[in-house]
Amino acid sequence: MADKETQQPEELPVVFLHRPPSFILPFGDHLRSQFHVLDPYESPEPYDSFLARHAPSIRALMTMGPTLVSAEFLDRLPVLELIVATSAGLDHIDLPACRSRGIVVTNASSAFAEDVADCAVGLLIDVLRRISAADRFVRGRMWPVKETYPLGFKLGGKRVGIVGLGSIGSEVAKRLSAFGCTIAYTSRNKKQSVPFPFYANVRDLAANSDVLVLCCALTKETYHLVNKDVMVALGKEGVIINVGRGSLINEKELVQCLVGGEIGGAGLDVYENEPNVPKELFGLDNVVLSPHSAGGTPEAFEAVLQLTVGNLRAFFSNKPLVSEVSNE
Amino acid sequence: MADKETQQPEELPVVFLHRPPSFILPFGDHLRSQFHVLDPYESPEPYDSFLARHAPSIRALMTMGPTLVSAEFLDRLPVLELIVATSAGLDHIDLPACRSRGIVVTNASSAFAEDVADCAVGLLIDVLRRISAADRFVRGRMWPVKETYPLGFKLGGKRVGIVGLGSIGSEVAKRLSAFGCTIAYTSRNKKQSVPFPFYANVRDLAANSDVLVLCCALTKETYHLVNKDVMVALGKEGVIINVGRGSLINEKELVQCLVGGEIGGAGLDVYENEPNVPKELFGLDNVVLSPHSAGGTPEAFEAVLQLTVGNLRAFFSNKPLVSEVSNE
Repeated sequence: MADKETQQPEELPVVFLHRPPSFILPFGDHLRSQFHVLDPYESPEPYDSFLARHAPSIRALMTMGPTLVSAEFLDRLPVLELIVATSAGLDHIDLPACRSRGIVVTNASSAFAEDVADCAVGLLIDVLRRISAADRFVRGRMWPVKETYPLGFKLGGKRVGIVGLGSIGSEVAKRLSAFGCTIAYTSRNKKQSVPFPFYANVRDLAANSDVLVLCCALTKETYHLVNKDVMVALGKEGVIINVGRGSLINEKELVQCLVGGEIGGAGLDVYENEPNVPKELFGLDNVVLSPHSAGGTPEAFEAVLQLTVGNLRAFFSNKPLVSEVSNE
Repeated sequence: MADKETQQPEELPVVFLHRPPSFILPFGDHLRSQFHVLDPYESPEPYDSFLARHAPSIRALMTMGPTLVSAEFLDRLPVLELIVATSAGLDHIDLPACRSRGIVVTNASSAFAEDVADCAVGLLIDVLRRISAADRFVRGRMWPVKETYPLGFKLGGKRVGIVGLGSIGSEVAKRLSAFGCTIAYTSRNKKQSVPFPFYANVRDLAANSDVLVLCCALTKETYHLVNKDVMVALGKEGVIINVGRGSLINEKELVQCLVGGEIGGAGLDVYENEPNVPKELFGLDNVVLSPHSAGGTPEAFEAVLQLTVGNLRAFFSNKPLVSEVSNE
């Protein structure tokens, strides 16, 4: 295998590609036409030696999916100024370390926002109207046997509490308003420009909601934000949709509450130990399980490409970044 | 079993209950508090004799679900003036016979409209984003084995063609607009107050759409409205959602087009020979199958009760009916 970096025009700005060994970059050519992409897994040189040799020229790093960016890793990149993430969530990046080093971080929430919101709404309709369970019922040839299928619940009029009203949460709110749901939210701070009622904490939001949709970032503060106490407040007919990160919920307590009927149902795209899903959920008809694919459309990936390239071009031409995250 | 009709106050207006023998009226008490309900299956008298004896007093009939109202049956009710249907579709009622007799008919579209529209949107998100198939993938414990799940397609930007822009179709349009879909429609006539482009026939609509949503009435004119020609016009990535009636589509050709990849997918709540679903569909991941449950929520049944009682009360007090259908 040729060392592709030597084929790169040396005058292009250097971008270090931080990825798992097995990850295939879906838009490599487009990136390479504009940047000198340093990809340690495309070089015959050992990883550590490759990294050490190039570190003095690496001002920008692009991290693919959930590839870990630890403080130790950052120590090996002394002149790093920018991390461009291809994900919406940034829980794989040591943000305090970035803050103390003055490294700025961009994310890709806005590229995924519509698709993740679509999936959140799809999961909610699916849980309330039992669509996946109905599909199992029909495929299992039960319709001619049982004649009728259990009723679901109407979406209209449901009080939906959105946890994290960022780009994804706002798209969820827009969609569910069209179904006649009422919207409330909780987030780090009350938003001035938003017409929906704000609750200062998730327990109060749950107590006043029929549905919770989790689309906030996973941080030290939001880890296990939804616990048994919150689920009991949501109530026996309450539904939880999680398109954020698995660890926003205490998964063990979620399983207990679902199995014990302390909440009404759940639509889950994310889990604490992906790709492992608690096996207790496999037998439940009031649960819809999706394999962390809420953002997974070709259109979203194209939008990620535009967004990441936009951030890198802005950085190298000293213009404002497109999607810098607040890292206070 | 006591003959309940004798317990009815004779001064209440008479309503004949036309239902299958096994159907349990979900709101019988409420109905009986306001009307003298004649239910042949609650009487020990043979059906024909019961009907013949009461026919001279039956001006109003309430038909439950898809119970057939044929011209022959209508001949046995010489003074019938009103049929109150509890369904959205009226394909089980001989409308030309009603027209020639001057019998007016009310339906319950508006009671089901929101729920059916929710289900149509749920089926569409499900097909495009492969939610039920993803749920099968996770429950089948394939995630840890295969690692990634095939991408779906984005909902936003899709051109949705609605076939029948009545109360259900309008609710579908409202919802899908919030997802960033563009809407067009076909119906018997162009509607003046509607902002969406109108196509005079379903083939032209299909040729200019990525998705067809069928929510029109099944009539002689709409029987097999969607055939292979229409599906080929819709194209290889096109998706069909049917929440109307099974026979709106030539089901044999639909199965061929799905199996042969001539359309991209389908979300079906209705079939030509319910509860029988073509077995060729059971193995397809691009199909979501629902057992004619799009309107099935407790909230919809409550709304049906309000609507049917409203129509009956209006009829007996000579006021305008709430949901009379145009039967031209």
